[in-house]
Amino acid sequence: MSEFELIARHFAPCGGDDPSVRLGIGDDGAVVVPSDGEDLVFTCDALVEGIHLPMGAPPEAWGRRLVAVNLSDLGAMGAGPRWALLALTLPEFDDSWLSAFARGLGERLREAGVALVGGNTARGPRSATLTLVGSLPARSALTRGGGRSGDSVFVTGVLGAGGYARRLWNQGVRERALLAPYLEPNPPWRLGPALRGRTTGAIDISDGFLADLGHLLEAAGLGADIDIEALPLAPGLDSARRADLDLALAGGDDYELCFTARAEEDEPLRAEALRLGVRLTRVGSLTEAPGLRLFRGGEEVPLPKILGHDHARRAP
Amino acid sequence: MSEFELIARHFAPCGGDDPSVRLGIGDDGAVVVPSDGEDLVFTCDALVEGIHLPMGAPPEAWGRRLVAVNLSDLGAMGAGPRWALLALTLPEFDDSWLSAFARGLGERLREAGVALVGGNTARGPRSATLTLVGSLPARSALTRGGGRSGDSVFVTGVLGAGGYARRLWNQGVRERALLAPYLEPNPPWRLGPALRGRTTGAIDISDGFLADLGHLLEAAGLGADIDIEALPLAPGLDSARRADLDLALAGGDDYELCFTARAEEDEPLRAEALRLGVRLTRVGSLTEAPGLRLFRGGEEVPLPKILGHDHARRAP
Repeated sequence: MSEFELIARHFAPCGGDDPSVRLGIGDDGAVVVPSDGEDLVFTCDALVEGIHLPMGAPPEAWGRRLVAVNLSDLGAMGAGPRWALLALTLPEFDDSWLSAFARGLGERLREAGVALVGGNTARGPRSATLTLVGSLPARSALTRGGGRSGDSVFVTGVLGAGGYARRLWNQGVRERALLAPYLEPNPPWRLGPALRGRTTGAIDISDGFLADLGHLLEAAGLGADIDIEALPLAPGLDSARRADLDLALAGGDDYELCFTARAEEDEPLRAEALRLGVRLTRVGSLTEAPGLRLFRGGEEVPLPKILGHDHARRAP
Repeated sequence: MSEFELIARHFAPCGGDDPSVRLGIGDDGAVVVPSDGEDLVFTCDALVEGIHLPMGAPPEAWGRRLVAVNLSDLGAMGAGPRWALLALTLPEFDDSWLSAFARGLGERLREAGVALVGGNTARGPRSATLTLVGSLPARSALTRGGGRSGDSVFVTGVLGAGGYARRLWNQGVRERALLAPYLEPNPPWRLGPALRGRTTGAIDISDGFLADLGHLLEAAGLGADIDIEALPLAPGLDSARRADLDLALAGGDDYELCFTARAEEDEPLRAEALRLGVRLTRVGSLTEAPGLRLFRGGEEVPLPKILGHDHARRAP
């Protein structure tokens, strides 16, 4: 048995016992049974050491974050998660690292009801790529381009927590609870399916609230007015301090949802979020005038110099 | 527009115009429509620089090989390819590298009728992971454990060509035509769907004929007798030279299919292979006695010391 077959054993417990999986880990491919009349949603997000996670990040965090960032994408499409494939590249065989990674991965997959059905392992610089497959009723995916002027702009959770925790890591803090928003985000993906039929545009925040809202606006050909005083800033951040405000607006690593909806959906959406324990805040509205504008008590406030935190460029 | 959005533009032509793709590259996830009554087959294979491809390998070869190794896995399951997701990690933005990579990838995807529907790009050491999704009629996937004593053992194509070309690369040869079996393998994946219902076990050869046949034997709880004189050695290799024989038996990088079938399927299988232009050779048979045995003219010949070429360990 090769080293990498031993690795595969770490992941066998992540396979679950989903009856939709005819054949899981161990053959040339996995065989699954989609449900008639459902569309499938595919997403694929990678973690690269030194880019998405810092050198020395705990292995559980690798596993937990890898699932979280992909669930976040599926949530933004309104899909329920089903099956996953893992491509893992490691510089060396380290049984304790792998065991902790698989534990973090497995916990999050089980919570979400996802079966790990296959993947690939290779030697190389540390990185992990998860392909996550979800499903939803035909033609019900949440997309980006349907907003109209006057639609509400919502965000879930709080803004700036991921960037704030990232800053703590960079300052040498190593307490898991303080770092969790950065290392182990907990995206509100369960809200995604409840948004079907109610939104005019949806995206997950990952690069930063303004950068990701900007993608929604671009798709809709609209602008937005955002009320700074309405923004749900992370505890410890003060919107009167420009650096804190910029962290919330553009710090990245928050993994919340941002979506737009007709005004008549405000109350039904709030009720769904309440039912699922997700904090939901209306932070502004779409406008015919293109571009993003920030207001505080009716006064326009300048945008941050950079609207997002580009994971493609970062070396923390 | 970020650097990585520019990269995405290179891959837009790989999206195709498949009506089963409701939403391709550009949102948080891709949305596709599976066919009622079909199972899905997922596979996920990665190329890491310095492991699966040598430093300095041509970018077209990266693209072409990435598709090939994944098609090879789907073929071994009997599935027809449908959709793909690409996770690409690159140390730098190099437009000419990317353009050539996307050309190689796109050519092979188009030949196979596969739509690239999404993926991920990040900075980091050069690697590429493709998740390939195929489909087939419910419960028709080719698996590994169904062999019976007396079943024929077949291989497609020739053995040793990939390892021989890899050796040429390591010797400094840079002629594309000579290196193609290594850098741009051309697996006989189209034969896979034609094997449905006819095989008792199937696998793709990638680590080496004996190593991969060993996986079939393990799954079936059987052994095999292999006739060296029947082996389809690559041109230039001579089975009387032990080093050549070992390259064919265990050299890896061949990306052919190996499968077992009842004797009464020999003729129908040959006819299917002929129809598809795939060379097919019966090289031995399954035995109740466990283990692998090699014979030359009735005399048993020792096995190679190492049965395969482990991509997880290799640093060419």
